Amino acid sequence: MNRPRVRDIGIDIGIFKTGSRNAITDVGGVKVGHCTLIEGSGPLVPGVGPIRTGVTVILPHDGNIFREKAPAASFVLNGFGKSAGLHQINELGTLETPIALTNTLNVPLVADALIEWSLAQSPEIGISTGTVNPVVGDIDDGFLNDIQGRHVKKEHVFAAFGAAGGGPVGEGNVGGGVGCSCMGFKGGIGTSSRVLPARLGGYTVGVLAQTNFGGMLTVNGAPVGRELGVFDFGGAAAAERSQTQEVSPAGVSAAPSQPDAASARDGSCMVVIATDAPLDQRLLARVTKRAGLGMARSGFYSSNGSGDFFIAFSTAYRVPHSGAPIATYPTVSNDAMSAIFAAIVEATEEAVINSLTTAETMVGRDGNTRLGIDIDDLIHILKKHDSLGWAQKLPPFGGLS
Amino acid sequence: MNRPRVRDIGIDIGIFKTGSRNAITDVGGVKVGHCTLIEGSGPLVPGVGPIRTGVTVILPHDGNIFREKAPAASFVLNGFGKSAGLHQINELGTLETPIALTNTLNVPLVADALIEWSLAQSPEIGISTGTVNPVVGDIDDGFLNDIQGRHVKKEHVFAAFGAAGGGPVGEGNVGGGVGCSCMGFKGGIGTSSRVLPARLGGYTVGVLAQTNFGGMLTVNGAPVGRELGVFDFGGAAAAERSQTQEVSPAGVSAAPSQPDAASARDGSCMVVIATDAPLDQRLLARVTKRAGLGMARSGFYSSNGSGDFFIAFSTAYRVPHSGAPIATYPTVSNDAMSAIFAAIVEATEEAVINSLTTAETMVGRDGNTRLGIDIDDLIHILKKHDSLGWAQKLPPFGGLS
Amino acid sequence: MNRPRVRDIGIDIGIFKTGSRNAITDVGGVKVGHCTLIEGSGPLVPGVGPIRTGVTVILPHDGNIFREKAPAASFVLNGFGKSAGLHQINELGTLETPIALTNTLNVPLVADALIEWSLAQSPEIGISTGTVNPVVGDIDDGFLNDIQGRHVKKEHVFAAFGAAGGGPVGEGNVGGGVGCSCMGFKGGIGTSSRVLPARLGGYTVGVLAQTNFGGMLTVNGAPVGRELGVFDFGGAAAAERSQTQEVSPAGVSAAPSQPDAASARDGSCMVVIATDAPLDQRLLARVTKRAGLGMARSGFYSSNGSGDFFIAFSTAYRVPHSGAPIATYPTVSNDAMSAIFAAIVEATEEAVINSLTTAETMVGRDGNTRLGIDIDDLIHILKKHDSLGWAQKLPPFGGLS
Amino acid sequence: MNRPRVRDIGIDIGIFKTGSRNAITDVGGVKVGHCTLIEGSGPLVPGVGPIRTGVTVILPHDGNIFREKAPAASFVLNGFGKSAGLHQINELGTLETPIALTNTLNVPLVADALIEWSLAQSPEIGISTGTVNPVVGDIDDGFLNDIQGRHVKKEHVFAAFGAAGGGPVGEGNVGGGVGCSCMGFKGGIGTSSRVLPARLGGYTVGVLAQTNFGGMLTVNGAPVGRELGVFDFGGAAAAERSQTQEVSPAGVSAAPSQPDAASARDGSCMVVIATDAPLDQRLLARVTKRAGLGMARSGFYSSNGSGDFFIAFSTAYRVPHSGAPIATYPTVSNDAMSAIFAAIVEATEEAVINSLTTAETMVGRDGNTRLGIDIDDLIHILKKHDSLGWAQKLPPFGGLS
Repeated sequence: MNRPRVRDIGIDIGIFKTGSRNAITDVGGVKVGHCTLIEGSGPLVPGVGPIRTGVTVILPHDGNIFREKAPAASFVLNGFGKSAGLHQINELGTLETPIALTNTLNVPLVADALIEWSLAQSPEIGISTGTVNPVVGDIDDGFLNDIQGRHVKKEHVFAAFGAAGGGPVGEGNVGGGVGCSCMGFKGGIGTSSRVLPARLGGYTVGVLAQTNFGGMLTVNGAPVGRELGVFDFGGAAAAERSQTQEVSPAGVSAAPSQPDAASARDGSCMVVIATDAPLDQRLLARVTKRAGLGMARSGFYSSNGSGDFFIAFSTAYRVPHSGAPIATYPTVSNDAMSAIFAAIVEATEEAVINSLTTAETMVGRDGNTRLGIDIDDLIHILKKHDSLGWAQKLPPFGGLS
Repeated sequence: MNRPRVRDIGIDIGIFKTGSRNAITDVGGVKVGHCTLIEGSGPLVPGVGPIRTGVTVILPHDGNIFREKAPAASFVLNGFGKSAGLHQINELGTLETPIALTNTLNVPLVADALIEWSLAQSPEIGISTGTVNPVVGDIDDGFLNDIQGRHVKKEHVFAAFGAAGGGPVGEGNVGGGVGCSCMGFKGGIGTSSRVLPARLGGYTVGVLAQTNFGGMLTVNGAPVGRELGVFDFGGAAAAERSQTQEVSPAGVSAAPSQPDAASARDGSCMVVIATDAPLDQRLLARVTKRAGLGMARSGFYSSNGSGDFFIAFSTAYRVPHSGAPIATYPTVSNDAMSAIFAAIVEATEEAVINSLTTAETMVGRDGNTRLGIDIDDLIHILKKHDSLGWAQKLPPFGGLS
Repeated sequence: MNRPRVRDIGIDIGIFKTGSRNAITDVGGVKVGHCTLIEGSGPLVPGVGPIRTGVTVILPHDGNIFREKAPAASFVLNGFGKSAGLHQINELGTLETPIALTNTLNVPLVADALIEWSLAQSPEIGISTGTVNPVVGDIDDGFLNDIQGRHVKKEHVFAAFGAAGGGPVGEGNVGGGVGCSCMGFKGGIGTSSRVLPARLGGYTVGVLAQTNFGGMLTVNGAPVGRELGVFDFGGAAAAERSQTQEVSPAGVSAAPSQPDAASARDGSCMVVIATDAPLDQRLLARVTKRAGLGMARSGFYSSNGSGDFFIAFSTAYRVPHSGAPIATYPTVSNDAMSAIFAAIVEATEEAVINSLTTAETMVGRDGNTRLGIDIDDLIHILKKHDSLGWAQKLPPFGGLS
Repeated sequence: MNRPRVRDIGIDIGIFKTGSRNAITDVGGVKVGHCTLIEGSGPLVPGVGPIRTGVTVILPHDGNIFREKAPAASFVLNGFGKSAGLHQINELGTLETPIALTNTLNVPLVADALIEWSLAQSPEIGISTGTVNPVVGDIDDGFLNDIQGRHVKKEHVFAAFGAAGGGPVGEGNVGGGVGCSCMGFKGGIGTSSRVLPARLGGYTVGVLAQTNFGGMLTVNGAPVGRELGVFDFGGAAAAERSQTQEVSPAGVSAAPSQPDAASARDGSCMVVIATDAPLDQRLLARVTKRAGLGMARSGFYSSNGSGDFFIAFSTAYRVPHSGAPIATYPTVSNDAMSAIFAAIVEATEEAVINSLTTAETMVGRDGNTRLGIDIDDLIHILKKHDSLGWAQKLPPFGGLS
């Protein structure tokens, strides 16, 4: 099983060049680690299994994050979620732990693990200085996972740290993406990056998304969800039904799935954005507001049940925990932000699609099944809509630099 | 010249049915009026002309709006704009004047005209009761218009009121849309509506957009801006250059336009949303947050210079200025909002595209020219990308009701 | 030791009448429970003790809170804190678990306990419906407590639930108030309530505060902190110097206040507001913004290190988890809110002072000591400033009804 | 008549030293100008008079403010107001016109005058660059003034600019303060400043307030409004009645004023904060949130009808309109903010009280009268409550540096 990323099948999203790995780790120093929990099958036994979940950690740098904080900001597009730590990020403008992504009911235990990890690194916390602010994002993976079980334990968070690296990033059914459903398909973790031309600053921006939201899939403009009759407007019930349809290779299903607005369980998307551009909290907050625009191009509409939380941080400099009463940092001008915004939009769109193309079919609790998108179907539809190979057709924007 | 709306050329955006006029006036009682100011040509003489501007007014109902307010809310996606009146809308949850859309430097004079209009209707204002909160949205039309001239006077606002009606809504180069530029093309006023199936509430939502933003146009997923080599990333300079390109019927331009991030003058989009669903300020605020998602599907990325302000109101009931200390109103449940959100996203997308297809080429100050999108080019590209006639291919979502 | 509440010593704060218990439990159906953890003494052994902490729970009603939610809202005055669950409260307008107040590093474990408690009551969570949003507020009690130890375990949260009742509310060194420091004195839990005159709605509002913030104490206008030379302005230097001052004859402190850590560790105040007025999220958000005003009258200035988070809920009606797609609830008009705001301000002020008068001296880790305010000193200063017995001097506002 | 400021009668508010003028102009480069309009008397003739209004302008520096912007931020405590320009301040982090304060219905015309003033200085606006964002704050002076008349014209704004200077600042019934009512007394313009000790940064902060809000006056903790039986809870009606009471020199009124919540017309306070501390938008936003705390100490409770808008700017550096794509500015650390916050709180409190002690009795339209606070009464009550001469009793905090 070797599922492709979007560029592997000729899809070129947007106008900017990607970084070398087309991943959030293209932003220098950023590391990502997953711990993936897949155990058991069959009927749900609450607290026991089946387990289809995990945790993903994103580290802004290799150092002591509490003592050397990263400039950061957050934005809540739809607050039906339980993310931890976002208030302080916006108030103080900094991130002081790694960001962890997991399932909704596991947020507290993962936050506690982040505290423990931070205490080990910075034993002064809570003794000779103040406390630490763990940052955790979440999605509801209860369609596939025994979410009541809160199976992500401290050791799993530490395992994710142990696995964290700055190279290629695992996508699809890994870490916090294991139990994701996205617009009727199997979702998961996806990532992408962009490098701005030198004359636009030359900055790298990277995005990592945990995709668990409703909508109807569009890929580079092609109406994939519509052609396949697979979508999710308003809850698990609709999505479940969509799985029972026969989907032909040509992508024409006999009947579209039944929408169902009775359940609000279609939700959530976490987006983490990293950049080496020197941005302060205000500018990073502006950046986070663009994530939803990229998601929208993929079919996202921020349904009621979708907790959509976006976090951005900069690696351009570090803010010391006990610093001088005055400091001097570089900051990008407002005018120079447009290119960064455009890059964020397209990298977010691509991260979402990457999460779908890389995620395989998953059978979870009670036999609940979420089909990974059929790659042949996808290519078929993209060809039909002339949505492949754009990079060859027109000189990329990046070439203008 | 009789330019088409998107449905006239076979473009079916989204899954819900439109209202009978496919306009914000499909929401019962809503009226729209324009006053269009097009005078002079040639070199700019600041304060004199040429004039390419106007004002559009949207009335929530036929009554005295100050005495019978409409539930309302607003959201600022990108605050690089000068909109008036939004703080009070969110604090008190009501709209107490019509909404006027005009050019940026004209916001104060138009607001003053709204005050005068309100005083005439409600002479108690400021005497036996408090003041009134005029609501005005704006875009920067200075590329075409003598914006320093603030040519929209009181009488023009009153003329817009005089012209206001509940029937078909003028689109394109009318009212506040006269001087708009949008993603390298001529923008303007556009509108669209959706009617939810009865089982999803049966509500009507209508959108009116004043489109003056940067980006690269996508129409129903088809990469129109990319194919035509017309886009606007970062300011008038880039867009101007894009106009000099030769655009073939096949939509292949010899060279793409040069982006230019040096100027932030690419901006702003106002979106006004009306609905007959009984929504309070909190729910209407949630609604406004979805407008940007619909715009994003058209190519919008909320550039630095784009002041993106969204206002929503409900016609389901009215809030009296001097009411009882306690009142009882119906309110839609959170769970039932998803369908409304989905309808907003697609109606906003369609309103944006309508503004482009209906807006003719405009030559403004100093001969500055913004080309209306070539409809043949547009159809050519949509066919190439199989983006026409979707409504015939798959049963519409609305048919499920 | 039987320390007084402010009214016991003749202090009448504000103009409205209190409820019968002068506590948040005067709002019908509201219950409060504490679990107090005081163990060990001497040098700090991180993870072991001494323990000076606890948890306080506030329940909006006796029923199943997940299935029958309380209208709610929150406001963050200063986001240097780790409170959980506030995003969803504002997005959906409801509270679906009790509110728990504890120490900062214990937030996650207490949130996890709230999840477990909710799962026990509503086993459908995460299986046939979505997840649950635990709400936890926090203060940093690390000056007295082994905060690294996260000593508040699941069983302590459950013990607080077991102890919860609707009668008199424990104040001072109880529950989440055990480790509090407030403006140089021992802080803790304090509560107060107000009943509006019938013609102003007749509503009851109740406030419960967890007071751990910096400033210089004022009691009913009397400059107590100044007279006693006891205050806390955010850092060791100021506090140390305050020890060297000669304190006026009226204000002899037996021992000067202890200087705090070198950083801005003076922080946080949680305020929980309950009312039987029918207020929706927008109005409750307006209510929460007034809590800081009441605190300001006590000497609060929202220092950098003070995480100041305010939550309000209404008991007037309940919002079902799976309700009809449309519902009708009563709502107070904007005009009728002023009296509620005024009541909130004075009840918050009194709750803060109650937390100080009821909290005894506490010796914590490493012998760190926080003195309870000397009641004789307090009375002496209040008499000097003619700040006692106001209720006798002027007819209370409530009498006007 | 030569009415005193608070320090003239021995009132020492807070712990920090004031600047040399105890005014916002103590912040180097800041200038303030008033244009005061007092004409006519007798019955109100809407549109004619009597006129009791004006405009106050605050300039952050002497240069071209559009081309060299001041770092700025704003906070809306209660959005029942019509202030212009605040969205862009927070989005871009800068102020690009002077701030003008006037009456509510005059906001548009004053904003238009700011545009005209800006165009004269920077004729490139709207032609070769984007537009300009006028910033105007407002209060409802309709109790005394023919507010419908919008008597503040362009020439009055320009006159305020002509009168602007960096020296002593006029207070009381000047400029935008002419028609103010505050807690039952005559309000107006008030100002104050603080200078931090060198070890806390040595920064100067200045506050200017336009005081038109409800509540019950407290001066340095003394319950002045209560003792005098003068207050305003919920509208002009109550306040009017309070004026009919006989107020004895001893400050005991035979009967307290009748509160009246039926009218929401008690509102608004604008606070403008200047500092030479190098603060970016995030930190200035934090600063603005403390203004309400200072007001609360004076008796403010942010009633429903009170539009409470706070704006802060820094003079430490200027942000060029067309700057480099990256810039480096100094910024105060979070930890070093507490002293600035404390200074803001006490300077705001003092600015409010200064506005009251300096404002003389004003008879306005229809003979409506607002009494200036009786200074003998005030001193009597302050002595009674031992609220005078505190600076002599304890070493000021500032002396610690």
